[in-house]
Amino acid sequence: MTHLYDIFEARFKGPASGNPYLDVTFHAHFSQGNRKVRVTGFHDDGEDYVIRFMPDTVGDWTFTTSSSVAELDGKSGSLTVTAAREGVHGAVRVRNRFHFAYDDGTPYYPFGTTCYAWTHQPLEMQERTLASLEMSGFNKIRMAVFPKDYPFNTNEPLQPIFLEKEGGGIDFDRPNPSAFAHLEKQIARLGELGIEADLILFHPYDRWGYATMTEEQNLRYVEYAAARLSAFRNIWWALANEYDFLLDTIPVQTWDRFCHLLEENDPGQHLRSIHNGDQNMNFDHRKPWITHVCIQNWDVKRTPEWRVAYGKPVVNDEPEYEGNIWPSWGNITAQELVHRFWTTVLRGGYAGHGETYADPDDLIWWAKGGTLHGESWKRIKFLLKLLQQDRLEGLEPMGMNDQWPWSRISGARDLGGKVDFIYFGEHQPNQWTTGLPTEDGNYEIDLIDTWNMTVTPAKRITAHIPHPQRHGNIVRGGKAEAAFGIELPGRPNLALRIRKLD
Amino acid sequence: MTHLYDIFEARFKGPASGNPYLDVTFHAHFSQGNRKVRVTGFHDDGEDYVIRFMPDTVGDWTFTTSSSVAELDGKSGSLTVTAAREGVHGAVRVRNRFHFAYDDGTPYYPFGTTCYAWTHQPLEMQERTLASLEMSGFNKIRMAVFPKDYPFNTNEPLQPIFLEKEGGGIDFDRPNPSAFAHLEKQIARLGELGIEADLILFHPYDRWGYATMTEEQNLRYVEYAAARLSAFRNIWWALANEYDFLLDTIPVQTWDRFCHLLEENDPGQHLRSIHNGDQNMNFDHRKPWITHVCIQNWDVKRTPEWRVAYGKPVVNDEPEYEGNIWPSWGNITAQELVHRFWTTVLRGGYAGHGETYADPDDLIWWAKGGTLHGESWKRIKFLLKLLQQDRLEGLEPMGMNDQWPWSRISGARDLGGKVDFIYFGEHQPNQWTTGLPTEDGNYEIDLIDTWNMTVTPAKRITAHIPHPQRHGNIVRGGKAEAAFGIELPGRPNLALRIRKLD
Repeated sequence: MTHLYDIFEARFKGPASGNPYLDVTFHAHFSQGNRKVRVTGFHDDGEDYVIRFMPDTVGDWTFTTSSSVAELDGKSGSLTVTAAREGVHGAVRVRNRFHFAYDDGTPYYPFGTTCYAWTHQPLEMQERTLASLEMSGFNKIRMAVFPKDYPFNTNEPLQPIFLEKEGGGIDFDRPNPSAFAHLEKQIARLGELGIEADLILFHPYDRWGYATMTEEQNLRYVEYAAARLSAFRNIWWALANEYDFLLDTIPVQTWDRFCHLLEENDPGQHLRSIHNGDQNMNFDHRKPWITHVCIQNWDVKRTPEWRVAYGKPVVNDEPEYEGNIWPSWGNITAQELVHRFWTTVLRGGYAGHGETYADPDDLIWWAKGGTLHGESWKRIKFLLKLLQQDRLEGLEPMGMNDQWPWSRISGARDLGGKVDFIYFGEHQPNQWTTGLPTEDGNYEIDLIDTWNMTVTPAKRITAHIPHPQRHGNIVRGGKAEAAFGIELPGRPNLALRIRKLD
Repeated sequence: MTHLYDIFEARFKGPASGNPYLDVTFHAHFSQGNRKVRVTGFHDDGEDYVIRFMPDTVGDWTFTTSSSVAELDGKSGSLTVTAAREGVHGAVRVRNRFHFAYDDGTPYYPFGTTCYAWTHQPLEMQERTLASLEMSGFNKIRMAVFPKDYPFNTNEPLQPIFLEKEGGGIDFDRPNPSAFAHLEKQIARLGELGIEADLILFHPYDRWGYATMTEEQNLRYVEYAAARLSAFRNIWWALANEYDFLLDTIPVQTWDRFCHLLEENDPGQHLRSIHNGDQNMNFDHRKPWITHVCIQNWDVKRTPEWRVAYGKPVVNDEPEYEGNIWPSWGNITAQELVHRFWTTVLRGGYAGHGETYADPDDLIWWAKGGTLHGESWKRIKFLLKLLQQDRLEGLEPMGMNDQWPWSRISGARDLGGKVDFIYFGEHQPNQWTTGLPTEDGNYEIDLIDTWNMTVTPAKRITAHIPHPQRHGNIVRGGKAEAAFGIELPGRPNLALRIRKLD
């Protein structure tokens, strides 16, 4: 018996000789009524071959295998899928074009953090990372399969991802089953915490050779990752971190091919995207095999521009990190990062957290996990709870960047039509009308202090009537912009929430 | 006897009948040796005709007049020009492509404010405005010839700019000599305070008809303004505020023609620019008759982009205003405006101040002058003093927007080669090396707190050697970026000043 969205695993014995990773093909064909799903199996260790499958419907399934070797060919079996366990919602999908939801329809708002190499740190630290994640409220984590070689990241990983050769070096044709088993265990634990694993398959920060594998090795690795990991409901495929710093070894057409391999070998069709390094080198997220936009860009007021450019959900993984290290992507204030989260979300996108406070032992959250030291995560959790509280369908920006006044302040309307937010950021008007309801009615309007995390009833006032102003052929003003106004205290980093009650 | 850069004025009697404004042409031809300068005269009031001339060289000058009427034709005279008075430096010109200096070579850094209609307010308030300006340290003011009709601006001006018709309305073919005399008096007083009058000839905020004069009336008015005002050393021609909201009455080719009229009739060739409304509607400042870029744009990290686009000095008049009124261009915090000044100046541009705090009587600095209530002006004055202290030739940005790390933080190097500034803004690194001297030497390095206005010696440390990082074909890091590093306190809104001492 398997629960819906959990992993069904079947293990088989096959040849241990030669190099099964390169030589053996192995698939299972799952059936439910007329429906057929092809699942790619993999060689695990020794004589062990594995099929993993995440059922997305309840009821009875059967399967048969096919393989290039006789022992693995024509095996069959069955499973019964029962209702999902409490708190299990399935995989995250794009919904409402710019937003996300789980398989079961529960809205999902990506509020993620970044700990690139956390699974390569000492086990005790990994435990602390998981505890911190649970406390933090983050529901996604960007993490890499490969270890990281980079400033502040000079320690050796616990184990290599491919097996070491006798006499030194790594054999990129022989994956390390123990390393993958550990990765899978941690992905599963994230899943139990309700955290999506935004898994980075390639990155350039390397001294072991992972960034300079051959084209053939790269393709095989992607297919293997799909075979091993696709059955985890909380997997997202982050093909790269900073793909543009890998273009010397992985050209653009190969990134496309990676996506195709995932389309072929991931029956769950988990989310796929490719993250840039240089702010002017976004991957072409319009390509149909890219499900959502992953970028790093500090210039978050441009969020609506990226929505238009790509027509997909925008996840700005790195609007710079809270911290104080010397690289300029890692030393903004907590206040500024919270501001960038609100600005991004109220312009129809999603932002990512990272924390980079200097540490005498280089134990920095962004790469190694461990303990959170900053102040932004609490406010980010507060914002997420606000979205969850109203079970929003997706916040759509009230204007485009060049529409008055929405290039300057940020406002968004939920697709459900019942909740609006307006965020003033560095602006501190003493009253407000733009974007408020134009018809009187039963509204609950709250003033939100985004830093102090308070929600208090806002004071309604009569909407002011601006003196008419000549603007070429049109005259602006002369009538109120809304059915009522809101009095504001004239300080920054405030937001309004307007709920329509009937 | 006239001092250099002061006004030489000669008055003549001529016909008072008919409409001299439309009917009479009157010029003077000033000579010094082989040099000839054509000056346009104007009819002032009654029988009075005037020639005004700002000499830009010392020594003896002679002049003769020419006119369409006999009484004003063939008059002659002479003047002797002696050295400039203390503190008088002449007109401001573009120098070093992106920067400015006075005629006498003194560097000029435009640090201006905005009081659009201050000369139309009660006289007592005008006195307060001048006192506030003197205290504030601003050396430029944006101000309009015409009165202003706009939100918070509903009062009548003291007098119309053109004469009222009997029975009501304004005769746009008859300028009001008294109104111009008052304007001139105030421009002269600004000049004595060392303040440039960035004089806006046209704007759309109108209920009297100034914004809808005929093409012929507009052209005649520009020529008249040139004749009356060109001899004021501190005049800048701001052809419009928000020209794009006037395009229904003044098409683009007419704006060009205005500039040509100023080129023809302003022998001093004072600075000329045209200010946009919509952030996407910058005038084409590449045109040769535009001397510098005037824009309004809150997105100040883009400053280097505008330098490249137009190849001229960038003066961002309105990077939004400090205040709390409801329009979103007028309600940012003092902190944010100071941040935008530093960001603009350290990216090779200049910014403008404005203050828009709500007032029960709508007495708001940005339109009416009076009293400053905010907190940014003090910090802006502090920044200006830092530039003046080193008599900088012009700060050139250390990198373009897309060059690492200068899209995120701001740094600039003086053209004189002796002083660098780096401004961290929302960034709070605990140490810094990028952009610091690469060769050891005798440097004075100060840490500047841009908000608390302190300058203290910065602590030099050994430059850190970043762990080498793979970035495609190149490997970054592995060696220090500079001869030394600076320890920083890890809080925002700090700057460094690096002076080379030998």
